[in-house]
Amino acid sequence: MNNTIKLAVHGAAGRMGQRVVALASGADTVDDTSGFTVVGAIDHSSHPKIGQDAGVVAGVRSLDVPVSADWPEKAEVVIDFSLPEAFDACVARCVSAACPLVVATTGLSDQQKESLAEAAQTIPIVWAPSMSLAVNLSMRMAQQITKALRDVAGGVDIEILERHHRFKADAPSGTALKFGELIADAMNADDPVKHVHGREGHTGQRSRNEIGYHAIRVGDNPGEHTIVFGMLGEKIELNVAASNRDCYASGALAAAKWLMRGNDGGPMPAGLYNMFDVLGMADADA
Amino acid sequence: MNNTIKLAVHGAAGRMGQRVVALASGADTVDDTSGFTVVGAIDHSSHPKIGQDAGVVAGVRSLDVPVSADWPEKAEVVIDFSLPEAFDACVARCVSAACPLVVATTGLSDQQKESLAEAAQTIPIVWAPSMSLAVNLSMRMAQQITKALRDVAGGVDIEILERHHRFKADAPSGTALKFGELIADAMNADDPVKHVHGREGHTGQRSRNEIGYHAIRVGDNPGEHTIVFGMLGEKIELNVAASNRDCYASGALAAAKWLMRGNDGGPMPAGLYNMFDVLGMADADA
Amino acid sequence: MNNTIKLAVHGAAGRMGQRVVALASGADTVDDTSGFTVVGAIDHSSHPKIGQDAGVVAGVRSLDVPVSADWPEKAEVVIDFSLPEAFDACVARCVSAACPLVVATTGLSDQQKESLAEAAQTIPIVWAPSMSLAVNLSMRMAQQITKALRDVAGGVDIEILERHHRFKADAPSGTALKFGELIADAMNADDPVKHVHGREGHTGQRSRNEIGYHAIRVGDNPGEHTIVFGMLGEKIELNVAASNRDCYASGALAAAKWLMRGNDGGPMPAGLYNMFDVLGMADADA
Amino acid sequence: MNNTIKLAVHGAAGRMGQRVVALASGADTVDDTSGFTVVGAIDHSSHPKIGQDAGVVAGVRSLDVPVSADWPEKAEVVIDFSLPEAFDACVARCVSAACPLVVATTGLSDQQKESLAEAAQTIPIVWAPSMSLAVNLSMRMAQQITKALRDVAGGVDIEILERHHRFKADAPSGTALKFGELIADAMNADDPVKHVHGREGHTGQRSRNEIGYHAIRVGDNPGEHTIVFGMLGEKIELNVAASNRDCYASGALAAAKWLMRGNDGGPMPAGLYNMFDVLGMADADA
Repeated sequence: MNNTIKLAVHGAAGRMGQRVVALASGADTVDDTSGFTVVGAIDHSSHPKIGQDAGVVAGVRSLDVPVSADWPEKAEVVIDFSLPEAFDACVARCVSAACPLVVATTGLSDQQKESLAEAAQTIPIVWAPSMSLAVNLSMRMAQQITKALRDVAGGVDIEILERHHRFKADAPSGTALKFGELIADAMNADDPVKHVHGREGHTGQRSRNEIGYHAIRVGDNPGEHTIVFGMLGEKIELNVAASNRDCYASGALAAAKWLMRGNDGGPMPAGLYNMFDVLGMADADA
Repeated sequence: MNNTIKLAVHGAAGRMGQRVVALASGADTVDDTSGFTVVGAIDHSSHPKIGQDAGVVAGVRSLDVPVSADWPEKAEVVIDFSLPEAFDACVARCVSAACPLVVATTGLSDQQKESLAEAAQTIPIVWAPSMSLAVNLSMRMAQQITKALRDVAGGVDIEILERHHRFKADAPSGTALKFGELIADAMNADDPVKHVHGREGHTGQRSRNEIGYHAIRVGDNPGEHTIVFGMLGEKIELNVAASNRDCYASGALAAAKWLMRGNDGGPMPAGLYNMFDVLGMADADA
Repeated sequence: MNNTIKLAVHGAAGRMGQRVVALASGADTVDDTSGFTVVGAIDHSSHPKIGQDAGVVAGVRSLDVPVSADWPEKAEVVIDFSLPEAFDACVARCVSAACPLVVATTGLSDQQKESLAEAAQTIPIVWAPSMSLAVNLSMRMAQQITKALRDVAGGVDIEILERHHRFKADAPSGTALKFGELIADAMNADDPVKHVHGREGHTGQRSRNEIGYHAIRVGDNPGEHTIVFGMLGEKIELNVAASNRDCYASGALAAAKWLMRGNDGGPMPAGLYNMFDVLGMADADA
Repeated sequence: MNNTIKLAVHGAAGRMGQRVVALASGADTVDDTSGFTVVGAIDHSSHPKIGQDAGVVAGVRSLDVPVSADWPEKAEVVIDFSLPEAFDACVARCVSAACPLVVATTGLSDQQKESLAEAAQTIPIVWAPSMSLAVNLSMRMAQQITKALRDVAGGVDIEILERHHRFKADAPSGTALKFGELIADAMNADDPVKHVHGREGHTGQRSRNEIGYHAIRVGDNPGEHTIVFGMLGEKIELNVAASNRDCYASGALAAAKWLMRGNDGGPMPAGLYNMFDVLGMADADA
């Protein structure tokens, strides 16, 4: 437990909170280490799991930490994976305890986002539309590849493929659009980039200033994005795919570790950060 | 040379003819055998390569067969990879010599197609829109997979992705449309199948009676098709990709072998055949 | 409920039993139909969920069918997703009620497998090492592709890639080995096929009579197999991947439907069947 | 022709030289521009194409530049795609003309490499084991992804898959080994990284300090590398594939452009550079 980070999980009895507890306990790793020690597992006082061991609830092993409505004294950092209605108390508590906070709760109101920005003047907070490390990292990689190849003789054609389950009612995904926006930016083209969604009929030759989007809908796919960079004689493909929700728990833990250690070993100062910061890639040019 | 098939190549000095000669000579195989012996290499009398060794012209090794405007006596089967203007003489010659013929020349006129059907009353002929074994085989596999999965609880979502070079001016490819037609047939749905080309905006949930098409345009891709069968909990993907034009030479050789050996060892009778026949999969239900 | 199949699920309160109940109730389909009506949800009398609605337990909706230790009278077919210790009673019950049975329980003893064969003299039973439709179907497709391409000029190189999670302690997977066995069979080679596991050092050129295996171990991958058929100028890839355990529930439902309807509408006679039978592909040559 | 770079190609009548001439003339681009003007096409005085138009020889269009054994006066930069025996004269000429040089000739002797280093004290030279932009760029991306993910809770498993044609007699490819070396470096592990080539038998669980290599040999694949980064709940894959030799021509042109323009518009000073420099990624930490 020496050198490990003392972590409290808010919403610890929920589906995502359980996975944070499990991964912070070294579950599904071969060496059973994560760099964390769970010291608090907070949930609503009416939750049926209150009083049970948080590790057992999470399906791993006894951690000697009960699910509780009370906040632990000794937490160094908090991960919040709860509900918008439980969110305000969590922020207030972290501010009063001067405790760094990772916000992974979704569906926050505009007012809640504002209070987050205010709290970030006192404590360091990580908050991002997607907690996935792989997605955020891939976005930066896609930008770098675009910049490196945009002037190559023969040119580079960039297309974005995304796959999601059959129930997704909009296309393309918000993540695909974000990839496209960042790539268009990096293309630094003289003329505006044309965003093309599917192709049918007599399209003519592909123009250079174009990004193609392809929204594939199949089965229960939890989300996958592929960026193709096609040149003459070679291509690069960058593929990022979720297999289940553990990616969000891992991302939250990475954010918590970064709040405590920063990029060079020291804790981060107060401020509102996102996953690009956590990756040490705040600046697209980095 | 015992038991090998005596082959004449019409258009032997052309780009595709050279590759047929090369592959029939065992080039690019590890054991240097193909089952064929090249006995004739026919091209136009004005071709600059007339008189040179056909194997040397093809970049492999001397075959003691010169490129010639004359037809060899001893050929058992002819592969025609020439031009529409040279085609008529080739068919006439094969009919008069009662020699089986594989037609891989593209751009035939309607009248030439008719004369092909007529010739097929006398000699066995293979002719197909695509000579690629892999594409034709994949079409049959796609049909079989569709049939096997169409009634699965939870349903199966089928999408067709195709990739071609940036110069392709129409979308999706004819091959993708053919895949879709065969799959729609195999879906055997009560309601007509909806063919959807790309997706954008509020699409709503994916309907079951739908095939999605995605035409990707990148670099110099010579042609690639992927059929995705997405179910709950699992998926199958069938991918077929050309890397260069050798696939058409290989397909023509497979057709020539089939004309001589059929599916059970004997030569095929007169008739007009396609690549599904060559694969022994004439019937979609086979 | 007209024309739907009356299904009883044995082990209905377990993880897999719940998914069978859910999918049989039309969950995760867009049209909410599956062709089944759940009429029985059997589990051990000491199970804490006894008496609760089976649909609610499965997380879908009330089905008016309680989880119960009693067998329903009206079931037309039974899916068993229980434990070896509960298995014997289930078989006995199905035999005495002359009810067709799908066995999806794993870990059966040799004696239990024998009693299965005996029961199959009275009732029709489906039992298979893997209930995945996609895996079984892909095996048949791989055999057909091998047969169709084995004599192609230039030859075909076949390699098997499999991916599993980091905890898998053996390599390659049993499924990969089964793919290899079926493909080797279909290669019908003069010399014995060489099974090569990874390559390092001066390997020399690839021999024709070789199947390569590649066991990739990454993250929490639930299981994926890719068969590559590489020729000159083109390739086919057949990829089959699990995303979660729903594939086994879907396969069990497909087996139950086949027991009731067979391949041409009528119920199957007594006998022991596997998933190849369910797919209508009992014979590799089909 | 204003603002374009005046290029001389050494070995212009050879297979690769022709492709450099073609791409520098805007072939296979939609807008027919490359940023270059070919002003010289040098080859051996005994070459049969001497005196013919270099653009026609390259299969594009007349460029009014004959293939010649003489060096043009006005070239701003030289690309050498010749043979080791022609190489020395090329270097000498570039030094005496103070002309920047891209060396894409392979098979140089140790003495020739030394003379290259010496020449680089006078003129700027780009020389690299692989001229492929995509491969060099992917190496840097793989390093960055490794660094960003190496400390993630749950860990990241990295595997390298490479595919090459059936004739390749060694495994894994030199490029795969180079990827592995750079990744191992970026893993920055306490214990030495274990390089594992294929897996068979009872392997036990995958260790964290491990890189897996998988050498796939199929058909006529010109070379493809895939790096898989597998985590809990998500993965990234980076795939780089050659489709034909144009990638080396494109890379050489990118290097020539960089010698003239550098990263900020000005020409590069004397020095020996590689493709990482051309990409502006000399430093792995960039």
